Amino acid sequence: MSVVPSPAPRPQEPVEPQELPQLGGEIDEPCLRADAARNRARLLEAAALLVAERGADGLTMEAVAAAARVGKGTVFRRFGDRTGLLSALLDHSEKKFQAAFLTGPPPMGPGAPPAERLRAFGLALLRRTADELELQLAAEPCADRRFTNPPRRVLIHHVSLLLREAVPEADCELLAHTLMAPLDPALVHHLTQQRGMPMERLEAAWVDLVDRVTGPTASPG
Amino acid sequence: MSVVPSPAPRPQEPVEPQELPQLGGEIDEPCLRADAARNRARLLEAAALLVAERGADGLTMEAVAAAARVGKGTVFRRFGDRTGLLSALLDHSEKKFQAAFLTGPPPMGPGAPPAERLRAFGLALLRRTADELELQLAAEPCADRRFTNPPRRVLIHHVSLLLREAVPEADCELLAHTLMAPLDPALVHHLTQQRGMPMERLEAAWVDLVDRVTGPTASPG
Repeated sequence: MSVVPSPAPRPQEPVEPQELPQLGGEIDEPCLRADAARNRARLLEAAALLVAERGADGLTMEAVAAAARVGKGTVFRRFGDRTGLLSALLDHSEKKFQAAFLTGPPPMGPGAPPAERLRAFGLALLRRTADELELQLAAEPCADRRFTNPPRRVLIHHVSLLLREAVPEADCELLAHTLMAPLDPALVHHLTQQRGMPMERLEAAWVDLVDRVTGPTASPG
Repeated sequence: MSVVPSPAPRPQEPVEPQELPQLGGEIDEPCLRADAARNRARLLEAAALLVAERGADGLTMEAVAAAARVGKGTVFRRFGDRTGLLSALLDHSEKKFQAAFLTGPPPMGPGAPPAERLRAFGLALLRRTADELELQLAAEPCADRRFTNPPRRVLIHHVSLLLREAVPEADCELLAHTLMAPLDPALVHHLTQQRGMPMERLEAAWVDLVDRVTGPTASPG
């Protein structure tokens, strides 16, 4: 294996196959200077906090400006309008989540056995879905684009890679689609909001599902 | 067990719990005379055949009338308009499917072990979904009503009853939602139309999933 110079800050970490559809290619400002990128991230963190606290309806350009202690004009210049802000917010959250399972610490990141990574992945995704529920429901693509939109494909791809390590004899692509179902925003909404289930029950069912699917004798990776 | 007089034609068959949301309560003509009911069923069978052959777009009031050899006026009188026809068609198909797993012969109906009934249920639902794909996609409820619409609830309820027999220690309601995922019209559309997978692959993955979830040592019911 040849060693190539890399700008990555943590070259010692295992790198996963990169044929997955990377997010972020559509971002219109790929060359933001470091301080501008930090400011943008700060606005998005403030926006995420607002959504978690007040729901998607509480997310206005004014509220984000106030929470991040910047002028309203800054928020408008950065995101255009509320739709642009919502879309940037989801993209930001996807990237953070993607970084956590691709290059973050175990058990979610590389280094833990695949079944343990799957358990951590689902628990983290359930938490994220619960936090961003309204946002994700509002952004749900229609039926014939639901499985082709890039964020979904990244998650499916990751789950099928882990399954290939844990249960190589299975049809891991199809099994990955099945495993993603209990993490789906529409179902999480139904179970928690319409059926009144606590998140703990969804979390326990996820862990049980991973155990059933990967089996007690699954290889430790 | 007491024996009560029953109008059912097959009193020897096991009866399943009846707390499930029965379809058909909304039908506006519950008291159709036998011949009118037969005519209605004949129109719907013709419509189902048209959809299977030509897709949902090929379903017009005129085409149904021609296929069933009745006047166009009869189709309009019976269903009002094309939307009414589509909705009646899905309802008709749901009821036939429901009858097959509730009171039909094993392995889908009562009498077979629960894991075998699950396998048969999924294979039949996959076939039905493939046959009615466009129709079901067009009728998909939006995210916040997807899991509360009556036909879906009937299916989920049935799957969780079978799971309760096969794996009583599991959270069967949540596991039922997961098992329903690979049978979902939007996913079947994606896998077969967008990814080009043959139905045989989806069928094999379903059987494998039931085996993984119910386990090799599942009780035979």
